[in-house]
Amino acid sequence: MSNFDVALAEAAALTDAAMDDLIPISDGPEKQVMEAMRYSVLAGGKRLRPFLVIASADLFSVSRSCSERVAAAIEMVHTYSLIHDDLPAMDDDDLRRGKPTCHVKYGEATAILAGDGLLTLAFEIIAGEETHVRAEVRCELALELARAIGPQGMVGGQMLDLMAEDRNFDVPEITRLQRMKTGALIGISCLAGAILGKANKNQRHMLKAYAHDLGLAFQLIDDLLDIEGSEEEMGKAVNKDKAAGKATFVTLLGPERARSQAKLLIQQAIKHLDIFGEKGNLMRVLAEFVELRRK
Amino acid sequence: MSNFDVALAEAAALTDAAMDDLIPISDGPEKQVMEAMRYSVLAGGKRLRPFLVIASADLFSVSRSCSERVAAAIEMVHTYSLIHDDLPAMDDDDLRRGKPTCHVKYGEATAILAGDGLLTLAFEIIAGEETHVRAEVRCELALELARAIGPQGMVGGQMLDLMAEDRNFDVPEITRLQRMKTGALIGISCLAGAILGKANKNQRHMLKAYAHDLGLAFQLIDDLLDIEGSEEEMGKAVNKDKAAGKATFVTLLGPERARSQAKLLIQQAIKHLDIFGEKGNLMRVLAEFVELRRK
Repeated sequence: MSNFDVALAEAAALTDAAMDDLIPISDGPEKQVMEAMRYSVLAGGKRLRPFLVIASADLFSVSRSCSERVAAAIEMVHTYSLIHDDLPAMDDDDLRRGKPTCHVKYGEATAILAGDGLLTLAFEIIAGEETHVRAEVRCELALELARAIGPQGMVGGQMLDLMAEDRNFDVPEITRLQRMKTGALIGISCLAGAILGKANKNQRHMLKAYAHDLGLAFQLIDDLLDIEGSEEEMGKAVNKDKAAGKATFVTLLGPERARSQAKLLIQQAIKHLDIFGEKGNLMRVLAEFVELRRK
Repeated sequence: MSNFDVALAEAAALTDAAMDDLIPISDGPEKQVMEAMRYSVLAGGKRLRPFLVIASADLFSVSRSCSERVAAAIEMVHTYSLIHDDLPAMDDDDLRRGKPTCHVKYGEATAILAGDGLLTLAFEIIAGEETHVRAEVRCELALELARAIGPQGMVGGQMLDLMAEDRNFDVPEITRLQRMKTGALIGISCLAGAILGKANKNQRHMLKAYAHDLGLAFQLIDDLLDIEGSEEEMGKAVNKDKAAGKATFVTLLGPERARSQAKLLIQQAIKHLDIFGEKGNLMRVLAEFVELRRK
């Protein structure tokens, strides 16, 4: 395994352990909803966002006991968004991370509540004293997270995505949609490390720029894999956008331009890490991994 | 109008103005979800929780510009819980506050996202600097709110409520369910004032005890009104629990014992306010209002 593979596996293991700890197996009245929350968060996944939190915090030598909590909170937010997006009233997906989706396993009502519970728990974790000794830092994290995932961020992006089924979006519209739907959470994942590490203005700016380009490249590759990948490889339904007649980067640009665009964005993303010198290596390799991933 | 009526109307007006301001009419991509959020939060209601936030903060002479923001955030959380509880997969209600429910008006997908958006926005407001000059205070508010409304609070209570359809709960079980489902948010509404006002331990304890008794009395009266009230008066479906064969305080205790129990709890709640002297008068009258309310 390369250093990067080790680091990715380590970040995933830290995050899984933190989530396992933060959503304990319960015998109380909340048993059923906690079980559904555990089922969805512990279903595996690349743990890309937790990696970004931990790697960006590592740039500033933030204690892992802080960054792993924030990584867990952000992965819970990501999982809540998947649970709600998969609901019959939304994208109506049965398969996620190779397993039945939360509502298929536990029913719709429990899935809605499991999503609500994960979102709420994420803020409880961020606001908790163990996340950082300084309340200013915890408050800034909560504020930036809420901004990234609210109506002007992730929630608004999912709304746009649903509207994209009725009307063909053009490239600027799809770009805006993806910045809100997936880019904003990737952005706060990188910014979280900067906030925890009390980064200066320029460092913050560079991490934001890195996340910006990485997020869009991630989506371009996702659209390519939706065309090229199999359901078995991806662990989720594929070719859905095409079946729904929805415009994506790939349908609008064609696969070749989409891939070269992704390549360009990854190069740009890596360039933004220059100021971090060698310390930025893992985040550089992560960007290459996003470009070359096959699922 | 009595002093109390004026104070109740004033708290509602302050909260409505704050919410109107915090969820602006939007022309951006988030237009549809913001519109659904505005529709549900500005549909009126008693604004009991905002009143409790503002009245408890007034005990400590907290600036209204702080308490009205927290009141708005907590009313948004209450509204998010109503939107999600009303969904077809949950309680399947068509009428709320005398108007079509959010999913009837905007569709299920938008309603799910409007609820998610309101929950997220509530934390954005609480974490924002305008809420309190000290980050410790804002963080404690966010932490206590998250605890009150997560799997061990409101979300867990709604889960129990759904399970109550399949199995007849006894009085201790219904009491636990209600403490989680409605009591926890009423509790944080009163505690919020104490946190904003940096209340001492005894003052906090008394406000928690007041909220505890008030919350349970509120639910007893709610169950009575569900039997006695008309749909027109209540602005929502009535007799639903009976139709679903669900146990309530009234089916278990009978209406007379339920009413005398509520009376006793209100007397207890008022007693907890003794340490606040005359300053506690509005919260005393609020307790009497809860006992005597007709809708």
